[in-house]
Amino acid sequence: MIYGEKRVARPIRWAMVGGGHGSQIGYIHRSAALRDFCFELVAGAFDLDFARGKAFGQQLHVAADRCYPDYQTMFNQEAQRTDGIEAVSIATPNGTHYDICKAALLANLHVICEKPLCFTVKQAEELAELAAKQQKIVAITYGYAGHQVIEEGRRLIADGVLGDIRIVKMEFAHGFHNVAVEKDTESTKWRVDPKMAGPSYVLGDLGTHPLFIAEVLLPHLRIKRLLCSRQSFVQSRAPLEDNALTLMEYDTGAVGSVWSSCVNAGSMHGQRIRIIGEKASLEWWDEQPNQLRLEIQGEPVRILERGMGYLHDSALKEDRIGGGHPEGLFEAWSNLYARFAEAIVCKNEGRRFDVWYPDISAGVEGVRWVENCVKSADLGAVWVEYQ
Amino acid sequence: MIYGEKRVARPIRWAMVGGGHGSQIGYIHRSAALRDFCFELVAGAFDLDFARGKAFGQQLHVAADRCYPDYQTMFNQEAQRTDGIEAVSIATPNGTHYDICKAALLANLHVICEKPLCFTVKQAEELAELAAKQQKIVAITYGYAGHQVIEEGRRLIADGVLGDIRIVKMEFAHGFHNVAVEKDTESTKWRVDPKMAGPSYVLGDLGTHPLFIAEVLLPHLRIKRLLCSRQSFVQSRAPLEDNALTLMEYDTGAVGSVWSSCVNAGSMHGQRIRIIGEKASLEWWDEQPNQLRLEIQGEPVRILERGMGYLHDSALKEDRIGGGHPEGLFEAWSNLYARFAEAIVCKNEGRRFDVWYPDISAGVEGVRWVENCVKSADLGAVWVEYQ
Amino acid sequence: MIYGEKRVARPIRWAMVGGGHGSQIGYIHRSAALRDFCFELVAGAFDLDFARGKAFGQQLHVAADRCYPDYQTMFNQEAQRTDGIEAVSIATPNGTHYDICKAALLANLHVICEKPLCFTVKQAEELAELAAKQQKIVAITYGYAGHQVIEEGRRLIADGVLGDIRIVKMEFAHGFHNVAVEKDTESTKWRVDPKMAGPSYVLGDLGTHPLFIAEVLLPHLRIKRLLCSRQSFVQSRAPLEDNALTLMEYDTGAVGSVWSSCVNAGSMHGQRIRIIGEKASLEWWDEQPNQLRLEIQGEPVRILERGMGYLHDSALKEDRIGGGHPEGLFEAWSNLYARFAEAIVCKNEGRRFDVWYPDISAGVEGVRWVENCVKSADLGAVWVEYQ
Amino acid sequence: MIYGEKRVARPIRWAMVGGGHGSQIGYIHRSAALRDFCFELVAGAFDLDFARGKAFGQQLHVAADRCYPDYQTMFNQEAQRTDGIEAVSIATPNGTHYDICKAALLANLHVICEKPLCFTVKQAEELAELAAKQQKIVAITYGYAGHQVIEEGRRLIADGVLGDIRIVKMEFAHGFHNVAVEKDTESTKWRVDPKMAGPSYVLGDLGTHPLFIAEVLLPHLRIKRLLCSRQSFVQSRAPLEDNALTLMEYDTGAVGSVWSSCVNAGSMHGQRIRIIGEKASLEWWDEQPNQLRLEIQGEPVRILERGMGYLHDSALKEDRIGGGHPEGLFEAWSNLYARFAEAIVCKNEGRRFDVWYPDISAGVEGVRWVENCVKSADLGAVWVEYQ
Repeated sequence: MIYGEKRVARPIRWAMVGGGHGSQIGYIHRSAALRDFCFELVAGAFDLDFARGKAFGQQLHVAADRCYPDYQTMFNQEAQRTDGIEAVSIATPNGTHYDICKAALLANLHVICEKPLCFTVKQAEELAELAAKQQKIVAITYGYAGHQVIEEGRRLIADGVLGDIRIVKMEFAHGFHNVAVEKDTESTKWRVDPKMAGPSYVLGDLGTHPLFIAEVLLPHLRIKRLLCSRQSFVQSRAPLEDNALTLMEYDTGAVGSVWSSCVNAGSMHGQRIRIIGEKASLEWWDEQPNQLRLEIQGEPVRILERGMGYLHDSALKEDRIGGGHPEGLFEAWSNLYARFAEAIVCKNEGRRFDVWYPDISAGVEGVRWVENCVKSADLGAVWVEYQ
Repeated sequence: MIYGEKRVARPIRWAMVGGGHGSQIGYIHRSAALRDFCFELVAGAFDLDFARGKAFGQQLHVAADRCYPDYQTMFNQEAQRTDGIEAVSIATPNGTHYDICKAALLANLHVICEKPLCFTVKQAEELAELAAKQQKIVAITYGYAGHQVIEEGRRLIADGVLGDIRIVKMEFAHGFHNVAVEKDTESTKWRVDPKMAGPSYVLGDLGTHPLFIAEVLLPHLRIKRLLCSRQSFVQSRAPLEDNALTLMEYDTGAVGSVWSSCVNAGSMHGQRIRIIGEKASLEWWDEQPNQLRLEIQGEPVRILERGMGYLHDSALKEDRIGGGHPEGLFEAWSNLYARFAEAIVCKNEGRRFDVWYPDISAGVEGVRWVENCVKSADLGAVWVEYQ
Repeated sequence: MIYGEKRVARPIRWAMVGGGHGSQIGYIHRSAALRDFCFELVAGAFDLDFARGKAFGQQLHVAADRCYPDYQTMFNQEAQRTDGIEAVSIATPNGTHYDICKAALLANLHVICEKPLCFTVKQAEELAELAAKQQKIVAITYGYAGHQVIEEGRRLIADGVLGDIRIVKMEFAHGFHNVAVEKDTESTKWRVDPKMAGPSYVLGDLGTHPLFIAEVLLPHLRIKRLLCSRQSFVQSRAPLEDNALTLMEYDTGAVGSVWSSCVNAGSMHGQRIRIIGEKASLEWWDEQPNQLRLEIQGEPVRILERGMGYLHDSALKEDRIGGGHPEGLFEAWSNLYARFAEAIVCKNEGRRFDVWYPDISAGVEGVRWVENCVKSADLGAVWVEYQ
Repeated sequence: MIYGEKRVARPIRWAMVGGGHGSQIGYIHRSAALRDFCFELVAGAFDLDFARGKAFGQQLHVAADRCYPDYQTMFNQEAQRTDGIEAVSIATPNGTHYDICKAALLANLHVICEKPLCFTVKQAEELAELAAKQQKIVAITYGYAGHQVIEEGRRLIADGVLGDIRIVKMEFAHGFHNVAVEKDTESTKWRVDPKMAGPSYVLGDLGTHPLFIAEVLLPHLRIKRLLCSRQSFVQSRAPLEDNALTLMEYDTGAVGSVWSSCVNAGSMHGQRIRIIGEKASLEWWDEQPNQLRLEIQGEPVRILERGMGYLHDSALKEDRIGGGHPEGLFEAWSNLYARFAEAIVCKNEGRRFDVWYPDISAGVEGVRWVENCVKSADLGAVWVEYQ
């Protein structure tokens, strides 16, 4: 149970790149980071428009002289302060992640990065090597995974409640971009521009979320081969897809599928994951994130609720409010950001941090999956060996 | 609105092959056929065990001398009566459908047949030709399609409410056969024996149901190519699958998928269909068959209910009880059997019957789809041109 | 499991009073009675308009000369036939139930009567005495109680799963009469006319349904006192209510409430019952009648499904189709009508029938409850001792 | 849309009384207050155990010398600082609210108080007068009311979408205290002790929450009389109730009911409110607080979702994350605390604050309602004129 006590001895000095006024994702980063004194926001390069970014930073009580025109300046200037930043979150369009992340690591900063980490596995592995060399963490904000019942699911599966895993069914299929909303919406425009978005739209933007949750739930599964069929129903988005179905075969004989879509008209959010084992299935839906369905064949369906005493201890320790009171996405992110803070402290002190979180390897795997999907799709939706 | 008045001048004299004691499907055939005086059960070859079948027939008030040891005897004997049967329903294991259907047509009977009609497209087309020649109907019991809101969905799509259709998502995935229940259950044993079941298990047994509903909802779509990945998670079932995922590309550019499974542990029934258009989506779930979700992008989700005045007339005319009172699967079947009766009378009188029902072409299409799926799966889950 | 075998040696010869063309309730009586050869419809006085009733009867394959102008004629004429009717169902406006029921009993007929049985406890007890004297059954069509999971709930409570019962929460609150639809709808007009409807509208028409289910679930509870507050939101309905809330205290210290309404705008049906015990609660909703929620405090909510092996045998024996396939209201009624048939045979043969069904005492209790509610309401919504 | 910009020029200097380690409610106060720089926590008397409270305060980064042994000391000491506290939140057992609130007002502090404000209407009105005299706000933490769709409901009703209001149905009925958990749980013990809890348990603790939401939704309704029936199913709780049903008659002819319970076994939270008008109903459930059901009679049910463009502007302006992403109870509280901050600034500056929030009059009304309920219950559950 969390009562708000500090998780780290003092808040980590922290900055953002991007995430300015108008950025929903920027706000959720800040809400999560500032919760319970894990981080304090002391600097930022919030906006390509310096004046706007500076004004916004001051609205966030950042000192005017620590609102910077760009990340390079920020990293340089902060490095010269004794109270300079220790960590940075990157909430910019995809195409900039690689450069900023690399620069941050070279500036001896811990990094929290929006997915995708970068565009190619080669880049991703380079960043992983650099992070290791610099003794810094790189965390990826697969925020949904921070919901507590995900941990409960992980434990139930580890306990063998489901038996051998057979099928992993993943979906993240919303309907908000059923038409070419990018023509009028700045925040969507870059998502369908390969230069800024990278080799995919919905595969990377949406599909990697349930994919990471599946990695958390099923750490032992390895993809052997996959096939991806992708479409651009709004034709101006081609070559980037707005809908995709990926089939996967795992080394254990299990199979999986991921439906990624932004043209699922009328759907609100539509992120679901269902793990089917020999004996039982687990299902989670991110629009009702406090519940987890446990369906044991031959028994009544059970609806498990966050915050209840029958859950595993590890699924209760981050509880912030009793069962029945809904926690939302902000709590999921807060759980992750608190782990990031603790991971940073451990890394600084050379200690091992034993709690899972979306780390650099999760970032590498997301990039790898997209790369394989795109390869398959571009060959005509054929099977490709996963590599 | 239906108040129970007769739909045909006199009940059609009707027999069953199969569907004896212990057969759930036999009971639903009878419940639907006898409803509102459409058919009367006057003869039957209910069971391979003649004594048992005869005893059962008498429990159904069939005269002892019209309970027959086999269908051949029945067709012969009944043909010699002036009050002989006019129609027959076939509710036997798959492997017998072709022979019985052919014999029935040759005996000048109208046929109502469980799916699959037969095992190959060649056989199916042969039966279609024979039916045409004999001037008889062959109806296929895709019973779920008889739910009234399916007709509502058909009309909404025809009205253009969804806009251009992009994605057709179909599932029929229950969990009842997650382990080798066939070892102890007679009624399941034949389903995993290729001799009796044909070239597939769940593709034919389950997947063809939502596939037919999609045909009803989207009569203009044609499959161009498909890919099917199938598994036998209970290994003793190989080469028959207990799980399969089929991807389809339609000639319009729309895409589809069908998940067929009997190992979806903990799922009760799990038949769902979601049609996604440019503007809106429709979703139907057979466990709550009186509801239809209409999700127009940018508007609140609407839940349409059977029996309500805002539905199309054609979706109300078979209403049997007011909105709010749930109708079940028996009503869906009753709707179809009433159409079968009317179709028989029309055929007898040389009149055209204008209401859709799962007719011989639905039977042919189901066989064709399974044949293509199996071909793809056996080639290693590759794309095959649909033929 | 039911496969359609006959439940009684030969169908009981049966007639209807009322339930003609345009009567939904008439159709559900017939659908249930004719199911599985329990009854055969051989006569009827279906309509006040004789010509219309006769035409309708013939549509139901009733012989023209057994379509009667009124119930008196029918009872007289049929009594003179050797193959005359043995039982009659009464589906007429409330105000006629008492007279018809009495006449039927005097004509040595078994009776199946729509609720309310009559208007006063005095009348009800008179009918009960007469039925006992005539050795006939009087069954009341509280049709919802025939859903199989009601029996499951009864058994779970009897097993002590809920512990001591504390609260019984009942609702039947639809929205179809939110405005004065009776001005244009013949079938509603009589419901708001005290002469035809009796001393109440929604209390008797709706509230008695969940009340009877509570009697089934909790046979040991006795109401000690109650209080009823009723309103006529559509003022032209006064003195009859279109909304009412009844509070009850039971002799065990448990409390109950019944919300009866036809002005619950937008609600489809809204019949719910929740039984709260010390340890657990049970909840059932008639719009999803195949499910029963079992909520044990401190454990995950369980959703029990009709047709599953974990249910009590007595909740499975009337199963007509496997779990997952929805049964509807027609099956619930069919279950009751089959019990009525068996009860009639037992009564005829002087044997005891051990299965519960809504019998004459259920009819008396429904009338008693309405009488007490009206008394309380008319005194200004004060507590009245239940008598 | 909220991006985290400051809502007030500088954070208001703020302290807590109560809400120490182990207090869930304390944490939600802090999470909400600290969000977006509305308040900063600079002092506290967190615990009756000074050492424990001081240690806890330091965990919250409160200076050691501003962690106080009791509220009196805190108010005195802080009053002598130039940077002393400006506002205080009271999260202590009920029995202390009156004294602390009074002392805070006398110390020239703005007050945010847990409900109930106090035990009697007389006390409540005294505090209201004092607040007016001191030119301070007193806000009450009816936190659920801060969910954005409550505002949407308020606007829909004001727009006349429901027509004349007929029925207000409120419930807050959880199951966590089905047995005497207070014997082992410190945080529950005082709730069933009249000295600390006041004249009621669940009426005040639970029932006042949906009651306040109804006040927000229906500002024009006035209670004319009410009747309350209350029980102590766990007998050791007597005279305090653990279950209660309150009936209300409003001056418009509308009726209402409130079910308050902590013995609703198996229920998670169970706070629901349904407003029924002539034309339509609105329903909200606090366990899925991002949705609002709009049920217009004769139209399909609509599910309105937080964050969507079809909502009223005033229901969107506090949006923190796009539709589909669930907000939780913390966001509801954050919305209120931000309004408290703005109300404080307005009050300080002598400006009118035009946004509704649970202010002192909400506090008075809650106390008034409980007082009337208890009066009715203690007279034997009879009607009492509301005063």
